[in-house]
Amino acid sequence: MVLSGLFRRRHKEDSNDDKKLALIRIVHDCEVSPPALQDLCTSVGWAKRDPELIVRALANSLAVVSAWDGNLLVGFARATGDKVFNATIWDVAVRPSYQHIGLGGLLMRELIADIDTYGISLITLYADSGREGFYERFGFAQDPAGVRAMFREKC
Amino acid sequence: MVLSGLFRRRHKEDSNDDKKLALIRIVHDCEVSPPALQDLCTSVGWAKRDPELIVRALANSLAVVSAWDGNLLVGFARATGDKVFNATIWDVAVRPSYQHIGLGGLLMRELIADIDTYGISLITLYADSGREGFYERFGFAQDPAGVRAMFREKC
Repeated sequence: MVLSGLFRRRHKEDSNDDKKLALIRIVHDCEVSPPALQDLCTSVGWAKRDPELIVRALANSLAVVSAWDGNLLVGFARATGDKVFNATIWDVAVRPSYQHIGLGGLLMRELIADIDTYGISLITLYADSGREGFYERFGFAQDPAGVRAMFREKC
Repeated sequence: MVLSGLFRRRHKEDSNDDKKLALIRIVHDCEVSPPALQDLCTSVGWAKRDPELIVRALANSLAVVSAWDGNLLVGFARATGDKVFNATIWDVAVRPSYQHIGLGGLLMRELIADIDTYGISLITLYADSGREGFYERFGFAQDPAGVRAMFREKC
């Protein structure tokens, strides 16, 4: 009985999640409104970036994927790279109220599909602590052959 | 006596290293001859890449630095990125017979200076196992805040 109850509840949640996900529009375009992106970044606790810099950075990105519920930006991901040998994924973000419905996975699949159109052999990323399992689902391996992430941040 | 002898030998080597380094010409240009780059890659045990793909990848790089002894390509480094928020360093290579004379450090400083002209706040790289100490000399920190390198390679 307990298991059956759990199954029904889970099933109901999945159904609602699917409906929520079905309403979301995926856009492949570097022209994402800076205020919309600033608002999404704020929602996930990231620093606000300058609108002009956002426009330039997106124009210089190899691929940009955004997810919209009506006029609300609910998810985002982009990649930089040389369009030949490598691409690096950055800024994978899902608005908190749209998390845990499969949107992060959808954004990753759409972004990887864009990157794959270039025939790029190596896709890389820097995973925040605790997020490794999420990226492993898309074929990413952690610290391959002992490779380490290294950052140099400007003060 | 032994120490003195060692000192003299080391001093002599340093002096020769300086002379060798002084002869090297640093070029900041994405137009590096593909056969020269293929030859350098072979010398350090890297896979040979297609000449046409090399030309495209370098043209799409944010900065490319090469080191020449006459017509011989002896060192190379490049970076990709969005020209605004981030740059990633790739393919730092020094021909074996020109290693241990400070050329790797020179290439890194020249490449970082190029990247800095964009005002980029974050420079990243993927360090091969055992090379972390080299990059730490230029202000790079390993796995900052638990961030992990993740790779997805095409079969």
